[in-house]
Amino acid sequence: MAPASLVANGGAAAAVEAVPAPVTGRVASVYSEVQASRIDHALPLPSVLKKPFKVVEGPASSAAGNPEEIAKLFPNVFGQPSALLAPSDSVSGLPEQKLKIGVVLSGGQAPGGHNVISGIFDYLQDRAKGSTMYGFKGGPAGIMKNKYIELTPEYIYPYRNQGGFDMICSGRDKIETPEQFKQAQETAVKLDLDGLVVIGGDDSNTNACLLAENFRGKNLKTRVIGCPKTIDGDLKCKEVPISFGFDTACKAVKNFMQIYAEMIGNVMTDARSTGKYYHFVRLMGRAASHITLECALQTHPNITIIGEEVAAKKLTLKNVTDHIVNVILKRADLGYNYGVILIPEGLIDFIPEVQQLIAELNEILAHEVVDEDGLWKKKLTSQSLELFDFLPEAIQEQLMLERDPHGNVQVAKIETEKMLIQMVETDLEKRRQEGSYNGQFQGQSHFFGYEGRCGFPTNFDSTYCYALGYAAGALLHSGKTGLISSVGNLDAPVEEWTVGGTALTSLMDVERRHGKFKPVIKKAMVELEGAPFKKFASLRNDWAINNRYISPGGF
Amino acid sequence: MAPASLVANGGAAAAVEAVPAPVTGRVASVYSEVQASRIDHALPLPSVLKKPFKVVEGPASSAAGNPEEIAKLFPNVFGQPSALLAPSDSVSGLPEQKLKIGVVLSGGQAPGGHNVISGIFDYLQDRAKGSTMYGFKGGPAGIMKNKYIELTPEYIYPYRNQGGFDMICSGRDKIETPEQFKQAQETAVKLDLDGLVVIGGDDSNTNACLLAENFRGKNLKTRVIGCPKTIDGDLKCKEVPISFGFDTACKAVKNFMQIYAEMIGNVMTDARSTGKYYHFVRLMGRAASHITLECALQTHPNITIIGEEVAAKKLTLKNVTDHIVNVILKRADLGYNYGVILIPEGLIDFIPEVQQLIAELNEILAHEVVDEDGLWKKKLTSQSLELFDFLPEAIQEQLMLERDPHGNVQVAKIETEKMLIQMVETDLEKRRQEGSYNGQFQGQSHFFGYEGRCGFPTNFDSTYCYALGYAAGALLHSGKTGLISSVGNLDAPVEEWTVGGTALTSLMDVERRHGKFKPVIKKAMVELEGAPFKKFASLRNDWAINNRYISPGGF
Repeated sequence: MAPASLVANGGAAAAVEAVPAPVTGRVASVYSEVQASRIDHALPLPSVLKKPFKVVEGPASSAAGNPEEIAKLFPNVFGQPSALLAPSDSVSGLPEQKLKIGVVLSGGQAPGGHNVISGIFDYLQDRAKGSTMYGFKGGPAGIMKNKYIELTPEYIYPYRNQGGFDMICSGRDKIETPEQFKQAQETAVKLDLDGLVVIGGDDSNTNACLLAENFRGKNLKTRVIGCPKTIDGDLKCKEVPISFGFDTACKAVKNFMQIYAEMIGNVMTDARSTGKYYHFVRLMGRAASHITLECALQTHPNITIIGEEVAAKKLTLKNVTDHIVNVILKRADLGYNYGVILIPEGLIDFIPEVQQLIAELNEILAHEVVDEDGLWKKKLTSQSLELFDFLPEAIQEQLMLERDPHGNVQVAKIETEKMLIQMVETDLEKRRQEGSYNGQFQGQSHFFGYEGRCGFPTNFDSTYCYALGYAAGALLHSGKTGLISSVGNLDAPVEEWTVGGTALTSLMDVERRHGKFKPVIKKAMVELEGAPFKKFASLRNDWAINNRYISPGGF
Repeated sequence: MAPASLVANGGAAAAVEAVPAPVTGRVASVYSEVQASRIDHALPLPSVLKKPFKVVEGPASSAAGNPEEIAKLFPNVFGQPSALLAPSDSVSGLPEQKLKIGVVLSGGQAPGGHNVISGIFDYLQDRAKGSTMYGFKGGPAGIMKNKYIELTPEYIYPYRNQGGFDMICSGRDKIETPEQFKQAQETAVKLDLDGLVVIGGDDSNTNACLLAENFRGKNLKTRVIGCPKTIDGDLKCKEVPISFGFDTACKAVKNFMQIYAEMIGNVMTDARSTGKYYHFVRLMGRAASHITLECALQTHPNITIIGEEVAAKKLTLKNVTDHIVNVILKRADLGYNYGVILIPEGLIDFIPEVQQLIAELNEILAHEVVDEDGLWKKKLTSQSLELFDFLPEAIQEQLMLERDPHGNVQVAKIETEKMLIQMVETDLEKRRQEGSYNGQFQGQSHFFGYEGRCGFPTNFDSTYCYALGYAAGALLHSGKTGLISSVGNLDAPVEEWTVGGTALTSLMDVERRHGKFKPVIKKAMVELEGAPFKKFASLRNDWAINNRYISPGGF
């Protein structure tokens, strides 16, 4: 065989060798026009953050559930009043002070994370001159291992109003064990930290509160403030009306980013143009179906499955398949052999019988040998066996073969959209043989995930996140700990946005795990009695049959 | 089991029944803001189309190859000079005439198709008042079956500057057999057509020329003009500098659409933020790798495979895998366990050994029983057997099981990006066991296809397509046939664009198929000596190791 390569000069390895050492961090000088223009996009601040402010406290807070247990778990920070920033009569506001502040990104990316960091940074530059800011690298592990970079104006600059989390990267580790808390304490002491901002979702904010509790219990000066972040939109309460990232992911705001809805709109146009494909689109949202619902309201697909409804109605996988097949049959009668179907990533988790099957499989596969003849299947309950046999072969194999290090079935790896395509195909084929269907069915599967969560933040997200960060700086400066940065009144002009902090414990309830109470911030699910779902429910029959597609576009 | 459903009122079927009859066509009143604002986006016309014009003819044309064979195949239209529109001294220009013009969309969608149609329509309204325009439905089959709709200003309006082909839909049928030509003639006569515009790629334009030849040979008055359309960018020549759709798919023009590059940029940001995934992105382009190359130049991925280079260097699948693995190893040494890799959809078609294997498989599977023990494999040549065994099991199965109606392997169904992930994974695992690799590898696969080709046309595409359509109207009005609408000087302001038509036969060569000469328009491939590839080749070693990612964004 002739020597061959895909590099310009000689063999790949040799050519690769000649390249200079890697650059770290972003470099604005090589940015695209959009990236460059976004950097200098001016961000308005809420009025209260533009002038000297004071902190006004509300009444003592409670918890979202089981306050007595939450109080026991957080003896040092439970019951704190919420803090609201208000204009101050004093000319100077808070005392000048040099602070040492750390920041960490926790969990999956959401557009706007970089703006939270620059908001904190700018607060310190504006209001606490001479302060130092550390970015812990790669998520909470960076705190435990004391891996950080010192943030400078030059380092931060290229990340302003840009998507992603790569300024300091993120991670999914948790600080949970006594040993891990000790590591975090050591870092806090070593860096002489006055404060730490944790940017993350429900779990990360629970963790932030445990850190606040722990630091205060150990009499460390390090205070901890959380910032609400989740692209799935499932971290939400009265004081935290929205998590950053959610706007970017879905809302069709002119001139802003709304990648998922844009892609769905394009796929709809494609479906209508070719007239021969059913596009099954899986969207992010493992625990809640907010993104799916929001995208449906923006684009009017023929079918949308909302996990919370499936759970509330205790639907089976067959019910879901039947629903899809019914719409396809009806559309075939009208001559439409195409359509668009939205499915939340977490659908399977909402179906009780699937959960039951997986639990049984985990149990059986841990103890039994899986024989070729399928005798092992006799260990399944009849309901689970029926479901297992109902599943497409590829999914059966995936359930049997793909296991995590603990030997458990990896539900997250199941490509729900492909599974549904196969099940619908099988059902339609049966009906074709029975003579009740003579349409054409071709499924196309899509997963819109990574393409969206690292998009540019919209102007809304950019501004909102910047305010969240700026507020976190103000709360730390005011000596607060165990609060989540809260920016409200978001429907009003930015000037009128409210800014403050809410006791993290007030968002918490407890769950019993391994015989112990664990604090949790309840995920905000799609409410079946809420206005968005009701609007969807009132329109979906029309959308199913007629083609009411809307293409939000990307301009 | 309790009755359960996903529709608001009772069972799915019942609720579906109650819905009113389907709407056909788009309705502007329910458009998104972007859709609505695009409709009235004003389109400039080249100066020459704004005033009375005349047709200036060049010298007689030849063919791209084998002119004597092309002349024999097209005795009635071969050798026509190219036509250039020039300002006319006469006040009125062409004579007033009521024309009957048909239009058809052929092949896959590309943004701008609707604008070609509205360009033709507006030409007739402006310059040939009282004309009638028919849209043949569902591609060339619509011509053969005489299925059409009469286009009116009201019907066309909602499609102006919108993506997709759904105004009249498209199809992939060809008009090839004597019987099919007869059907086309019947339609032309029945509708009393003065002209027909065929909007399509290389095959469709070849077909358009055969129709032009056929109609003239039968002394029909119906003239045929082609319009160049392909999202893959492989229909291109001196007079047709670009096919519409290509700009939209890739170019990072501020404020315009550039969906693929935007998504790649987002995936890059994601890769850098999480630091643990290699994203393998398959992009459209079965015959040529233009989109992949263009996206690479816009975004700077770590690895880009260009099919034309693979073919020119006669690379094997193992060479390609080795190249990817080498870069991954080098990056792992630098601590980068992530990256982005672009792959053209048609990669497999560029690898000679894979073509050979597939040819052998088609032959064997047509005649042999595939036995469990794999004895059938002995029929493979040793090189093909080696390759077959090198392939991941899932791909082996796909090659054996997924056959088209003729029993042939369906190469297009192979998910090349997943295949490469598995092959790279296997190779790295081997190296890990040998001790030469201790990084982490996790592949994520993406196919960016349907999401992009139905996006909104950019302002450039909107304007370019409108001019192509307007020009097609002018050429038909001037009595021309067998030309492809040509708009040039595209780097200049729109006013200065040149407008004319080029003899379709001048783009043609012949291929020998089934013992006969067949006319073909040569696909424009990525030229390894051309400036875009050379630029890419000079930078890729740097991109491989350093992270020079650029995010074109979507603003």
